[in-house]
Order: sequence, then C-alpha cells, then structure tokens
Amino acid sequence: MRPAPDLALAERLFRTLHDDSADGDGVTRDAYGPGEQRAHDRIAAEGARLGLERFVDFAGNLALTLPGLDRTAKRLVIGSHLDSVRRGGDYDGPVGVLSGLACLAGLRAACVTPSRDVTLLVTRAEEAGAWFPVSFPGSRAALGTLPASALSVCRRDTGRSLASHMEQGGFAPERVRTAERWLGPDTVEAFLEMHIEQGPVLDSLEIPVGIVTGIPGSRRYREATVTGEANHSGATPRAFRRDAAIAAAELAYRLDREWQALERQGHALVCTFCVLSTGADAAFTKIAGTAGFELDMRGLDRASLDLLHDALERLVVEISASRRVAIALGPETGSVAATLDLRLQDELAACGAALHIPTRRMPSGGGHDAVAFAQAGVPSALLFVRNQNGSHTPAEAMRLEDFADATSIMMGWIVRRACPDISVD
Amino acid sequence: MRPAPDLALAERLFRTLHDDSADGDGVTRDAYGPGEQRAHDRIAAEGARLGLERFVDFAGNLALTLPGLDRTAKRLVIGSHLDSVRRGGDYDGPVGVLSGLACLAGLRAACVTPSRDVTLLVTRAEEAGAWFPVSFPGSRAALGTLPASALSVCRRDTGRSLASHMEQGGFAPERVRTAERWLGPDTVEAFLEMHIEQGPVLDSLEIPVGIVTGIPGSRRYREATVTGEANHSGATPRAFRRDAAIAAAELAYRLDREWQALERQGHALVCTFCVLSTGADAAFTKIAGTAGFELDMRGLDRASLDLLHDALERLVVEISASRRVAIALGPETGSVAATLDLRLQDELAACGAALHIPTRRMPSGGGHDAVAFAQAGVPSALLFVRNQNGSHTPAEAMRLEDFADATSIMMGWIVRRACPDISVD
Repeated sequence: MRPAPDLALAERLFRTLHDDSADGDGVTRDAYGPGEQRAHDRIAAEGARLGLERFVDFAGNLALTLPGLDRTAKRLVIGSHLDSVRRGGDYDGPVGVLSGLACLAGLRAACVTPSRDVTLLVTRAEEAGAWFPVSFPGSRAALGTLPASALSVCRRDTGRSLASHMEQGGFAPERVRTAERWLGPDTVEAFLEMHIEQGPVLDSLEIPVGIVTGIPGSRRYREATVTGEANHSGATPRAFRRDAAIAAAELAYRLDREWQALERQGHALVCTFCVLSTGADAAFTKIAGTAGFELDMRGLDRASLDLLHDALERLVVEISASRRVAIALGPETGSVAATLDLRLQDELAACGAALHIPTRRMPSGGGHDAVAFAQAGVPSALLFVRNQNGSHTPAEAMRLEDFADATSIMMGWIVRRACPDISVD
Repeated sequence: MRPAPDLALAERLFRTLHDDSADGDGVTRDAYGPGEQRAHDRIAAEGARLGLERFVDFAGNLALTLPGLDRTAKRLVIGSHLDSVRRGGDYDGPVGVLSGLACLAGLRAACVTPSRDVTLLVTRAEEAGAWFPVSFPGSRAALGTLPASALSVCRRDTGRSLASHMEQGGFAPERVRTAERWLGPDTVEAFLEMHIEQGPVLDSLEIPVGIVTGIPGSRRYREATVTGEANHSGATPRAFRRDAAIAAAELAYRLDREWQALERQGHALVCTFCVLSTGADAAFTKIAGTAGFELDMRGLDRASLDLLHDALERLVVEISASRRVAIALGPETGSVAATLDLRLQDELAACGAALHIPTRRMPSGGGHDAVAFAQAGVPSALLFVRNQNGSHTPAEAMRLEDFADATSIMMGWIVRRACPDISVD
C-alpha cells in the first residue's frame, strides 16, 4: 500500500494548538515559555501515541523519529517551529510540524519501515521579531552554529536571557556554549521544511505549492536620520531651504526607482522604507528640520543587493549636497542569503508533477529554520503553501486542500528518499 | 530742523518690553491677556508722556495720534502688534510699534505739526498660531472686516472665546458683531507697518531693509492621508505592494519638482511638506499601510498657486493609480493673497535711495496686520528689517543700526506724505 499522510490528524491538531493558545484575538505561543512548551507537549504526546522515538535536545528542540532499517545512515529531517508572534495566526509554524507528523503517521499506518531514520524536528524560538532578537536559536543550537553570545540576548518582554529561559525549561545552555551539536552535514541527509508563504504570490498565481529557491540576504538601516534646518515655511525661499522631509522623500522615491530599474535588469530584490517620518518637532508652517527612516533591502544574490546599496550610497551623497542636509545611515545590520539545494528542488518539483499538483519555484521573502540548516551545510529545502491574509496576524488563512497538496508532495519526497521499495519513479 | 526718529526711546522700550514679559527663556505676551495688556499700558504711558492723543477702540486696539493741521483729512496710520508667541523673541511685533513711536517722538521733538493726523496703531492678537486661531482679529475689528463668527473662536490655552477675552479686557465685542468700524479707505490715507523679516533673505543679501510687494495667499492641506496596505517587507514583491510610505514620498518629491519648474518659469511660490510620516503602526519588516502629511503651498499670485495646485491634483490621481493607494487630501484651508500698494512701494524705495540706504523689493512669507488693511482697501505698505535667527524664537536677533535705517525710511515717508513744508524731494 502506498502510504498517505494522516490529514485528519493534522486537521485535529491545528484546532488543538489553536485552542491551547487562543489569546482572545488570535494565538500567542511565547518562545521558551509556557505557550511554546504546551504546544511541544501536545506534539510529543501524539508522537508517543504513534510509537515514535522521542528525544529532547539540550536546547529544548523536540525530535520524533521513525526508525529506519539502517540506523547508522544519515537521517532525513522534516519540521518547523511552534512558537508564534503575539496575536499570531494558526499556520505560521504549525504547518511544518503537522505536515511532518501527518507523514510519519501515514508511514506508521502503512506499516512502512524506511531505509533510514526519518525525524520530525520541532524547533524552538523561531519568531525572532517577537521574542528573542536572534535568528533561529533553536535549530542553530542543534546544528552547533549558535554563537555563545546569543545566550545573553534577552527576551523582549521578560528581559531575561535566552540562557535563563533555557534553564527554566530544563535544558542545558552550557552545551550551546561549547558548540555541541547533534545535527549537521555528517548526520543529516536532507532537511525539508514546509511553511505558509508570507506573501500573496501563490494566491495571485492560483498555484497551491511553492518550491523555494533561496532566502534573500539583507542590508538594513534601522536608525537612519536626515538633519536639515527648521525654518518658516512661508518666509524661506527654495534656495535657503535645508528641508529634511523633502530630502528623505527624494531618497525614498529615487531609491525605489533604482530598485525598479534593477528589477527590470533581472535582479531579484525588495526595497522598503518601513518607517519614514519627519521629527517630533515637525509642525505646520515649519520646514522640517529632521527626519528619520528605517530601510530594509533584501536580495537573493549578494551582488544584486550590493548594486542597490551602491545606488543608496550614491543618492545619499548627491541629495546631502543638493539639499544641504546631513543624511546619516547609522549602523548597518543584515543577514547573508541562503541558497536552497537545487537537487531537492528538482525532486520536489518531480513529486508535484507526479501528483498533478501545480508548483512554482520562487524565492522566500523571510527567513525560516531551513536557512540555519542550509547555512550549516545540510542540503535543505522549503515548501510554501498558498495562503491568504499574510502571516503574523490572527487573519492568517490557508485552505486545507492546499495543505493536503503540499503534504502529499512531502510524503512523496520521503518515500522517494527513504522507501526505495515503494518509490516508483 | 529736519525731524529724526528718537532711536534712544525705541532702544529703551525694547528692553522694557523684554523685561516686562521675560519668561525665563524668551518672552511671552498673551493676546487679550495680561502679557499683551502690560505692553499696551507701557506704550500708552509713553504716548501720554509725548502728549499724543490716546484712543482705545472697542476691540482694545490702542491708537496714539499726533494731530495734524487738517483734522478732517484722511490720516496716516503706522503700527503693528505687541502680542508674542510663547517663548518668542524681542522683535516680532515691537519693531513696528517702536519705530512708529520713535517717529512720532521725533516729530514732537522737532515741533513739527503734520498736515494730517499721524496715528500709531497698536493692534491686538496678531499671533494666530499661538493664541486665537483667527487672522488679525484686532486690526480687522477696527476695519469692520472681522466676521462675527470669529468672536466664538477660543484661545488655545484658556479655552475661552475671543468675545469673553475682549469683555474681560473692558472692550465691547458686541460692536464687532455689528461690524462697526473706525478705520477704512474713507478715513485712512495709507497704512505702513514695519516688521522683522521672518526669513533669511535680507541677511544673506546683506541688505538692511526690504520693501514688501505682497503677501502670498495659501492653499493648505493639514489632514492629508495615504492609505495602502501593510504587508511583509520581504515576502511582498513590487507588483503586490500598496506602499503608503513610498507613495507619500513620491508625491512630495514630484510636487517639489513641479514647484521648481514653476519657479523657473517665474512663478513666486513656496511648497512645504511640513509633516510627512508613516502611520503609528509602521514597523520594521512591514510595508507601511498608512502615511499622512501636512502640506503648505503659498503664492503671491493666485494663478501661480492654482498651477501648483493643479499639479498636486494631477499627481494625486496618477500616484493613487500607479501605487494602488488612496490619497485623501482632506479639508482645504488657506488664505487669499494680498497685494501691497505700488505707489507706496515706490515712495519707500525713493526714501531709501535719498538716505543712501539699500533696499530690496521682496514678497513676504507670512501674513501681517498690513494684510488686513490691504484687504480692506486701504493703500498699505510693509517694511522688513533684516534680522538673524528667524522669528518666533528667543534667539530672534536684529541689529539696531538696521532698525535705525528702516525707521529713518519710515520717518522720511511720513515727512513726504504729511509734512510738505519739510519734504524736499
């Protein structure tokens, strides 16, 4: 019998996870806190019911393993996270956990023993924007790539360090400090994550499943300022102005045009002035003396991103001079792009084709645990499920038939990679 | 003997007015309140000392008159206001009052009886931005052009109406309601105001005195909004964006370019996005869903102003469509431009030339009491004194030699218009 994912189980657990963490508005599952722990406990209990091997690592990541025939072979790892932002939705995170669990349950129900271990990994603390301002502490701890300094980072609400939260959960942050690891290129054959798309592309294209090609790197300025001079808006002729508002507007508009031009040349970029505001002293009949902005530039390819950054620097020099203002970009932050495994992309596309499920290759806008695996040298892949209303909102929406399509592709891929007797292609 | 203005008197009174109203930082003289009243009392006392006729009208304006030979002839009126903004400076207002007083004192000292009455008018409540949000209530009341509705306008800090403040001062707001007037084209030959320039033009040109050609009208939008859609800044490709920040930036930058183009064609305009800000929900890694701006457009000539406004409307339509946002300009406010009397400008220029004092014709950025007189049909003029550090700030600075130059021109003009026996040109 060809194994099928247990979609009823996933559907039931979407509801359970929601009910466990409903906050009146949406759901809140705090990283390394009671919200996330309750969800981990729920999944661990299901794993026990299915007879999966349970292992909780020193960083609190939960691994549920269906043992393979050759237990020394490198394993397949599938999974995602269960923490949510405050007032988040039901799908960002759980989709990757419940699809994996549905596949393992399906293999169990079909009495399949894979050729190698297949592990569902439920990571910790993926929502860096909401809790700990550090990327992928859970998966990076398991991979031995989390720097010791990250342990000192404090959770935004509690003010307590990551190490303290790990200790309170009963885990062992000192083993992060010594860069211990149990996952890596030597132990993991491939990592596959499933996640809702965080943008509108699939929905607008009417394609249920995306196969992610890569996750853009970023160059960011979150504390940029423009300093001109406040003057009377009626009595100050053009030539005497040092208008911070119009200088900021010119920079934003012209950088947007540069982005547009680069995009037409084939560079995959996004460029966003997330915040753009005149200073607190701005008032009617005054020329703005100060302005500030927060700029987020992302690109799959570092060279493309650098071209946009070159344009930014050129514009800053030009506009500072022409408008007689000081534009200070402030400290730069950002991240390196991650490229996902091409062979895995091809395999997932083939699985989709075999099942007559339309798929589309696309970049990801945001980062996910798959980035940590890819950067640690593990061949990694990321499937997107079409969804509505974006992510990080109670309005997150996803059709279960789309989830079923994506999970079927995941199952097809597991069978292809770990069940040679069943695989037919 | 050719009469000379009593500059020592003016210098002494600048200090007295400062000391009477020092607030620790600069000066505060509240309109229709104790601050303004104390200053009026001070000037009234000086008028009494000089033997000038004193008259306080039903709106509290103070008139000090040097009687002329023909008391039925239309009079010359010179003057300005004495109220200040909170933490204002020593010159915005007092310059026009003390120059006039210095001239009358000089005429008195030279035992000159003018051919017609020369009246120093000390108006009330000119600082609309600071106290009552209505333009020139004092001078307009005297001219019979203040609408009755203005009496209900409340002072920003006390919350009490203009009528209530007038009554408390001992004045008679009911006579405003019936549009009574004692000044107008039938009683006033000409009105001359002196004021510090509120911008940097004279200082940068190294010219001590400006002769104002007109006061721009304005078209204003103080509650404009841009509504787009908040989305993930990484996961939302260009084509899916409805970015309120970049739409507002594009509008601001392109309207600035339109202004520049119109200026090159000879249109006298200013255009200022005084406030330009993404909404309160703007945050990093989000595309801004909302933005707002406050736009102040001014022009000497209504047709020029309308050309800029046409450009605004065109851009709003274009950018709304291209960026898929809703731009709502909200209620329009503004004022009509005032043209100052050309013959008076010529006379003042001639007086400057006769005294070898460089002058420059220029528009005014802001409105002054002279606007009320011009709009009431009285031939009106406005002299600017070069100054430093703008206005409405404790840092207001003016050289007394520049004040002396401007006051000498004023005296020359009074002599020319009202002392035919002395006038030599």
